Amino acid sequence: MTVSIKEAWKTLTELDDILLLTHRLPDGDAVGSLFALCRVLRSMGKRVTYEIDEIPRNLRVAAFPQKEALIPRSVVTVDVGDKKLLGDEAAKRWGDRVDLSIDHHATHVSFAKQTLVDPRSAAAAELLFDLFSQNGVITDPETAAWLYVGIATDTGCFRYANTTAKTLGTAAALVEAGADNGALNEGLFETKTRAYAAFEAHAMQSLSYYLNGRCAVMVITQALYRQTGICENEIKEINALPRQIEGVLAGITLKEKETGGWRVSVRTRAPLNAASICAKFDGGGHVRAAGCELPGTAEEAIEKLVAAVKAETDTPTAQGK
Amino acid sequence: MTVSIKEAWKTLTELDDILLLTHRLPDGDAVGSLFALCRVLRSMGKRVTYEIDEIPRNLRVAAFPQKEALIPRSVVTVDVGDKKLLGDEAAKRWGDRVDLSIDHHATHVSFAKQTLVDPRSAAAAELLFDLFSQNGVITDPETAAWLYVGIATDTGCFRYANTTAKTLGTAAALVEAGADNGALNEGLFETKTRAYAAFEAHAMQSLSYYLNGRCAVMVITQALYRQTGICENEIKEINALPRQIEGVLAGITLKEKETGGWRVSVRTRAPLNAASICAKFDGGGHVRAAGCELPGTAEEAIEKLVAAVKAETDTPTAQGK
Repeated sequence: MTVSIKEAWKTLTELDDILLLTHRLPDGDAVGSLFALCRVLRSMGKRVTYEIDEIPRNLRVAAFPQKEALIPRSVVTVDVGDKKLLGDEAAKRWGDRVDLSIDHHATHVSFAKQTLVDPRSAAAAELLFDLFSQNGVITDPETAAWLYVGIATDTGCFRYANTTAKTLGTAAALVEAGADNGALNEGLFETKTRAYAAFEAHAMQSLSYYLNGRCAVMVITQALYRQTGICENEIKEINALPRQIEGVLAGITLKEKETGGWRVSVRTRAPLNAASICAKFDGGGHVRAAGCELPGTAEEAIEKLVAAVKAETDTPTAQGK
Repeated sequence: MTVSIKEAWKTLTELDDILLLTHRLPDGDAVGSLFALCRVLRSMGKRVTYEIDEIPRNLRVAAFPQKEALIPRSVVTVDVGDKKLLGDEAAKRWGDRVDLSIDHHATHVSFAKQTLVDPRSAAAAELLFDLFSQNGVITDPETAAWLYVGIATDTGCFRYANTTAKTLGTAAALVEAGADNGALNEGLFETKTRAYAAFEAHAMQSLSYYLNGRCAVMVITQALYRQTGICENEIKEINALPRQIEGVLAGITLKEKETGGWRVSVRTRAPLNAASICAKFDGGGHVRAAGCELPGTAEEAIEKLVAAVKAETDTPTAQGK
């Protein structure tokens, strides 16, 4: 059941012994939203704990709330567009027991008893800010920092087209509330290890072009991870590179999985719809940024993806226009 | 004479047949501030023209106001921290005839009859927004776009520590007023030519480290420009790279001039003061981003710069703390 901000807040006030979950391979919005919600719920006197995968190094920019030993009586998810994104184990254990899901994906597949979803929010953290501020929560500096992390990372630090006037206004309010944006950005965006700089130079050299330069593909192999000492959860930013090349409408990044096959990121420019390209391979996401998985060799995966991009170029879907 | 926003506005209302100038090698704030001011003054019924160097390709994201044939009776500068930054010819011709200088550099060297300077503004365009909004100017979408260009480029799209809550709030107001931030950012930040991508990969490979990794230096030669077909006014963004490496407090970029010698960019992290490092070589700028010029070979220039960074590391100046 889809609920309003008011109804979601009522639900949150009624829950206790809460387990918070987010998606596997957590990004800045997953981490920031989870920790901000954890802090606010505890400030309301509730017992709250959480489960999360390893947190990428660049996201360790503020203190993590402590986990709490408790037997969950309720489950809340943030930034989870589909219960399968919880990961196999958590999906099996908790997927059908979620009381409230707070999310901002247009492709959200309902799985919780109650769903608060707003695709106009650039980040789940932006929606959480609305939820808090409309219900009289005064944001402390640390909660503001975590909400800022969510919004800044999901918008490429306010670069991407999902950044609205409201997004910028929310960021202004968070900085006003004590988020140290300069220091946070330095950790989130302005710090690369020497190893990462070398990794990026190599990855850029793997760029190849298709469809008269409208499609650019970058391939990241397990061998490159080994050669540079970089691992997958350190390289979210790399997904932005192929689309940055002039004339490219679809920028694709293939990352080889440890078990073989590829995790695929698709970033598009108007009028192409990344979510509908990825939907052809059972993936999903946003209009300009989506993901899916493909088996086989890099060449096979590229052939399928380029064909899907070509079909989308020929007849862009309504949402992408 | 330093003037208030109110006094500066009174002066602007009294001037006519206005020549607008900005600094040579114009960046986004120079271009955006110049064009926004031009549009607003014309909307007040004034005759206005401008002089500007070639505008970098990534800044051609909105319509340029037409130049007007007029004999200037008054001169206004924007984003010019020192009259020598007008370039030799313009400095000689107009440097002592400037009625009003609107600027945001902490190192501003007074040269105009009246100076409106606010170093808390992240960009001259942010100060112009205050000037306009406090005097009842309703910002049209195109003026909003040019002010957005100024603010977004001078803050690295809201990444740098000069971005305040007020900066973000101003950006929100500009998007509300019709600046299409998604499209503007794509032009300003998200578009690289294939040639630029190759240039960047080469430049990254030139990185060398000094002072136990606290200082990183990138060297860009005329030969690299020739090899990749890239020219200097296309590569402002490159200055940000050396400081991005973990542990680096001073990131330095040396760009070889056509006539020999080096144009130097210094970017720092707290507590180092980039402006005072550059001041040792007759340069200037902001606390975290400044510039200067040095003669000789790359090795000689690096030796002097590293010594200056070392001195600053040992005794950081008050402003940099």
